[in-house]
Amino acid sequence: MGLVVQKYGGTSVRDAERVMNVARRITDTYKQGNNVVVAVSAQGDTTDDLIEKAKEINENASKREMDMLLATGEQISISLLAMAIEKLGFPVISLTGWQAGVVTDTRYSAARIKRIDTERIRSELDKKRIVIVAGFQGINKYDDITTLGRGGSDTSAVALAAALHADVCEIYTDVDGVYTADPRFCKNAYKLDDISYDEMLELASLGANVLHNRSVEMAKKYNVKLSVRSSLNNNEGTYVKEVEQVEKMLVRGVTRDNDCARIALCGVEDTPGKAFQVFQMLAKSGISVDLIIQSIGNGVQKDISFTVAEGDLEASLKLLEENQPVIKANEIKWSKDVSKVSIVGAGMVNNSGVAATMFEALSDAHINIKMIATSEIKISVLVDQKDAERAVVAIHDKFLLN
Amino acid sequence: MGLVVQKYGGTSVRDAERVMNVARRITDTYKQGNNVVVAVSAQGDTTDDLIEKAKEINENASKREMDMLLATGEQISISLLAMAIEKLGFPVISLTGWQAGVVTDTRYSAARIKRIDTERIRSELDKKRIVIVAGFQGINKYDDITTLGRGGSDTSAVALAAALHADVCEIYTDVDGVYTADPRFCKNAYKLDDISYDEMLELASLGANVLHNRSVEMAKKYNVKLSVRSSLNNNEGTYVKEVEQVEKMLVRGVTRDNDCARIALCGVEDTPGKAFQVFQMLAKSGISVDLIIQSIGNGVQKDISFTVAEGDLEASLKLLEENQPVIKANEIKWSKDVSKVSIVGAGMVNNSGVAATMFEALSDAHINIKMIATSEIKISVLVDQKDAERAVVAIHDKFLLN
Repeated sequence: MGLVVQKYGGTSVRDAERVMNVARRITDTYKQGNNVVVAVSAQGDTTDDLIEKAKEINENASKREMDMLLATGEQISISLLAMAIEKLGFPVISLTGWQAGVVTDTRYSAARIKRIDTERIRSELDKKRIVIVAGFQGINKYDDITTLGRGGSDTSAVALAAALHADVCEIYTDVDGVYTADPRFCKNAYKLDDISYDEMLELASLGANVLHNRSVEMAKKYNVKLSVRSSLNNNEGTYVKEVEQVEKMLVRGVTRDNDCARIALCGVEDTPGKAFQVFQMLAKSGISVDLIIQSIGNGVQKDISFTVAEGDLEASLKLLEENQPVIKANEIKWSKDVSKVSIVGAGMVNNSGVAATMFEALSDAHINIKMIATSEIKISVLVDQKDAERAVVAIHDKFLLN
Repeated sequence: MGLVVQKYGGTSVRDAERVMNVARRITDTYKQGNNVVVAVSAQGDTTDDLIEKAKEINENASKREMDMLLATGEQISISLLAMAIEKLGFPVISLTGWQAGVVTDTRYSAARIKRIDTERIRSELDKKRIVIVAGFQGINKYDDITTLGRGGSDTSAVALAAALHADVCEIYTDVDGVYTADPRFCKNAYKLDDISYDEMLELASLGANVLHNRSVEMAKKYNVKLSVRSSLNNNEGTYVKEVEQVEKMLVRGVTRDNDCARIALCGVEDTPGKAFQVFQMLAKSGISVDLIIQSIGNGVQKDISFTVAEGDLEASLKLLEENQPVIKANEIKWSKDVSKVSIVGAGMVNNSGVAATMFEALSDAHINIKMIATSEIKISVLVDQKDAERAVVAIHDKFLLN
């Protein structure tokens, strides 16, 4: 039939039983007459265990050696998965990142794929073998092993699909697909049949936890059709692709992201460029700022509030304290007990009533909005973390019920 | 000063503390002005754990995939050891087998090193880096990872020393060096300052458990000077080299090997070629036969006894039972409760009294000899396993005390 690239995450291969289960899925696809190339992550907690081992010895190990260490996680899973497929009686071969020709730049621990030399993979496919490739890893121009950082295995899979011109790239995970909201607490949430790359990008970056942004960006760039589905059942998943819709749905999904912290600089001198100074300082330290609000100054003082990822809070506060002589804030306040709730939909750009409807839903639920930010295809609000799930449900049911 | 190759086994790097200890030894050697190249084994039980993981999935996994899996064990230890050396503030780089240019033949799980392309290692040494190489593994002409089988890391170290023309190859293990007998039960045993390759070969194959034979053979072939020493203290070890002795010592060591089983074919037809048939049959199944005794036949029947490794006993018996129509033995007897006790020494070839003295020692200790075999530099006897340690002590004290 065609060429299918599949990706299985760490939970999908966490033990022998799961590995056998994945092997059966792969061989089912192969039996249908497809060429199959599979990218796999490290099993369950392997990567964390390896990081722990490293920390026991050296908290500040070089990234080059960390990559050498962490790459073993995927090498273990590809060989075990290949053994499982052998057991089922199918021809198979496992390939590490370098064997599969995954060439990256030289940024250890956060490498970018430059190209995939597909010669070896193609020759194995010509031999009718199922090809199992280690996700998350590649080789740089020094012949050193590199890893791709967060979301690396998804990126490996999409890069393989792009390089091999695969018909589809199936991302197997522990959820059924992309939902209109998190079904764990939003009982009316339902699965989307398809979603555009741009919408998926917003959902991914907003905490939908299904696909990593890098992989969606790459899929968009090379027009790789993605299918997000569960490795634990046979439900149809969600397709991520260039969706051509006659009438675009207003809102496609509602997300919640607890991984944010709010910082407020109160009583900052109201002079031009003050905000720029602050954000440039943070950017230089590699800290991404998300929502931003600046109060209207009175010519003397103003307040600047913004959010950062929770993991960046401490570093941000340290930086701001150190630069108090420049910033001259009366007070620096912060809180971790906030969540970002967002709606995403390509259709909302042409519909001015969306924001109002969202605020109405929150108002009806007596939820206070602390900050607001909008873009072409999303609207985000910051709320107290304790209200976040209720907020998602209220907004979801307002927009997406029926 | 020079170029030193060191090898550390799995117990020497089994946890973070041991890894740091090894790192200090390596940097001590480096601080003395040496170029240092280190071959490392997988930590402690890593290899066994990986084999266990494989067996859970597929008892008959292909050797190619087993090698892919097992090679991760050494990749983990080289990166951890490099991190430990980084922590001590020294320049270091870890290299997998393929990065280090270790090219093998295509026999997965039992590969032989064909050559080492030393370009990468030399360029790292030129940068004044300590080079940590994964032992036990290499790459074959298909760009596949291979492993060297038992004793692989010793072999890697010796091959590196030969290819780099190292001044010495230091094998660090958990014993101080090569002893005249096992000091755990032979209280008068003492450490040898040096020993010849040939003597070491006999001692290694007879259960001295210090160095694997393959590595000694390779060291002899390329005239690599070996130093066997402990990673846990600073005692001088034992040198294995071409020993030039004015007067060769009669006996250098006494060994005991419990890993043997005795099989007796009683009442076999006394026709020419019968023994040949039996041993050819075993050889074809990859079973090595060690000591052999054939009783003097009476023209009708004879007895053939021999020993095999304990792990081969079951397969041997099965094979013999199946071939009873050809062998026509009246009875096939076997026992695991036997040990092989041997004396080794390059000098004994010219001294006919050695065997007699050995038998006298055993007789004085009231130990019954079941089988005897001699070669140019060794004499082995088979005794009841319960008598083996007493036999070693008796022989040792007869030859080596003073």
